[in-house]
Amino acid sequence: MSGQDKQDAEFMAHALHLARRGLYTTDPNPRVGCVLVKDGRIIGEGWHQRAGFAHAEVEALQKATEDTEGATAYVTLEPCSHHGRTPPCCETLVKAGIKRVVAAMQDPNPKVSGNGFAYLKTAGIEVSCGVLEEDAKVLNRGFIMRMTQSRPFVRSKMAMGLDGRTAMASGESQWITSPEARMDVHRMRAESSAILTGINTVLADDPSLTARIDKEVLQPIRVVLDSTLKISAYAKIVSLPGRSLILTCSKDESKKEALQKASLEVYELPEDQGRLDLTEALKFLARQEINEVLVEAGGVLNGALLADNLVDEWIVYVAPKIMGDQGRGLFCLPGLEKLGDSKEIKFSDIRRIGKDLKLTLKR
Amino acid sequence: MSGQDKQDAEFMAHALHLARRGLYTTDPNPRVGCVLVKDGRIIGEGWHQRAGFAHAEVEALQKATEDTEGATAYVTLEPCSHHGRTPPCCETLVKAGIKRVVAAMQDPNPKVSGNGFAYLKTAGIEVSCGVLEEDAKVLNRGFIMRMTQSRPFVRSKMAMGLDGRTAMASGESQWITSPEARMDVHRMRAESSAILTGINTVLADDPSLTARIDKEVLQPIRVVLDSTLKISAYAKIVSLPGRSLILTCSKDESKKEALQKASLEVYELPEDQGRLDLTEALKFLARQEINEVLVEAGGVLNGALLADNLVDEWIVYVAPKIMGDQGRGLFCLPGLEKLGDSKEIKFSDIRRIGKDLKLTLKR
Repeated sequence: MSGQDKQDAEFMAHALHLARRGLYTTDPNPRVGCVLVKDGRIIGEGWHQRAGFAHAEVEALQKATEDTEGATAYVTLEPCSHHGRTPPCCETLVKAGIKRVVAAMQDPNPKVSGNGFAYLKTAGIEVSCGVLEEDAKVLNRGFIMRMTQSRPFVRSKMAMGLDGRTAMASGESQWITSPEARMDVHRMRAESSAILTGINTVLADDPSLTARIDKEVLQPIRVVLDSTLKISAYAKIVSLPGRSLILTCSKDESKKEALQKASLEVYELPEDQGRLDLTEALKFLARQEINEVLVEAGGVLNGALLADNLVDEWIVYVAPKIMGDQGRGLFCLPGLEKLGDSKEIKFSDIRRIGKDLKLTLKR
Repeated sequence: MSGQDKQDAEFMAHALHLARRGLYTTDPNPRVGCVLVKDGRIIGEGWHQRAGFAHAEVEALQKATEDTEGATAYVTLEPCSHHGRTPPCCETLVKAGIKRVVAAMQDPNPKVSGNGFAYLKTAGIEVSCGVLEEDAKVLNRGFIMRMTQSRPFVRSKMAMGLDGRTAMASGESQWITSPEARMDVHRMRAESSAILTGINTVLADDPSLTARIDKEVLQPIRVVLDSTLKISAYAKIVSLPGRSLILTCSKDESKKEALQKASLEVYELPEDQGRLDLTEALKFLARQEINEVLVEAGGVLNGALLADNLVDEWIVYVAPKIMGDQGRGLFCLPGLEKLGDSKEIKFSDIRRIGKDLKLTLKR
């Protein structure tokens, strides 16, 4: 690695660090960080905080402690060249006299990808792209998936005993895991654009699905799959601030109206073999500008999502408890007879958390 | 740590390393290593290889490359002072002119513990004990448990999919885990004095329960819990070399005779609520000089062992497969209703093995 490459990687790592400060607040926008460097020294830094607020590049330029003429800008994402809620960053970078732009990755939106770089090059600015690209992609994997595949990144979280049970025979499931694992779930909720659950979970547990962490958080949107509109207007989520979406196949207009009056948003979606079409549901969520979905559901919905291969990442907390073979299982998956029918995924990370394990698995 | 302490720890680590060479062969004896040191140099080393062969101290003295007069002997276990199959090592050490004996731990047998050290001290030899004691205890945990508690160390091995199933709905269970995990099981079998299984596993899988590894191995004794003597004289274990013990509550003498003719050893043991008394079964195995038991069984026997709190260590291989909620579970444990009824154990080690996880849990 050359001295220049090493320096580029170091400043980009710092820009990514800044971008991560927006982890809980930038939805539906991506998390972006920017560092301005002149004569090997950082003279400005910024990150995108919230939709409608300044982009990372603009914030870095505004906060610059020296003249930016001749500086290099490190950005974790290709600067925008179109007029959105704010003026295009490319224009602003040119005006500020930036000499070189180093980006971690192109804009994933196929309609505009590369336009920013072209604009900058035309203006005589030197452009490099691809520095710490993998890290930048992980940070915005939901946004990238929405832009490139018109669906959100889907992560499902489960908690079980060592014997694969998510609840006791009585249905009791609070709390299987340690406080440390539960805190980790709140962090994951805070990162997510939406929490997806099934009507059975709402009826059984009446959850609030909020992210309770000690940071500024844009609370995730609540999404309930409720094919026959069984939800009550007195469910806990109804009274909470923020959006609650009910996705249904029901055509019962009077029920819909009653729920809408209770401030729930009800959307009718296509049916697939008597149940809500999950692929269509995810496409719908992408149209709602939802980047990252956290599934917190029971065996029925998780089984259906697994069967349709719609989950990108599984997070499984394992408590060192044996809950008994009358307890409820992780997945309802009828029709698996032989080992050849079993669904294979892959471990991508294993670690301890409190007294429990946290397993991360990918398709 | 003083220079002397550091040197003691280094030579003891080497003696433990030598002792581990006997991991698969010393049953029912403990694994023991010995290093002779003179003027800071190793002048002899030995380890106990098999019951009836030389003890580690004697082997080290025999192999010494210099006069042992004035040397220090590092031994992983207190030298014996009684006449067994071989003359007492203490006597031999005194005769060889050893000046100092450093041991990792006392003999765990309460009847003779400390006698060796007393003998050596009386003969004017300087004695230190407790160097790397924890490591020495782990190496012979089964022997120690048999000597101090009259029961073997019990380890249960299980393999499951991510959703806690040990077999598909069809009963199919070969092979859930990767070749690397299966190799690890053979290594564990080789370490064990006996493999304990239930009659249901024998009837369903007809296993051979041998340790297939590329080393010299004293094959584990096969033990089948078969309360009503359902085993067939044509089971695979009948035709294999080595001992097969059938533990039963049956009083059917003609069946017993038929099985004994087929070279099985049949023992009648006490009953407890209509099934074999597991505590008594373990005591019986200790009387058979079995130090370490590896349980390879299904949900019924594992559930009963868990309920009676008789397992010291659980090894659970987890394959990244979802096998479905019709599959068989790890433990049959009727009567667990609430979370307060669940059985808690503790994770002591987690690691990856091939595509799978290996979880180690303790009481």
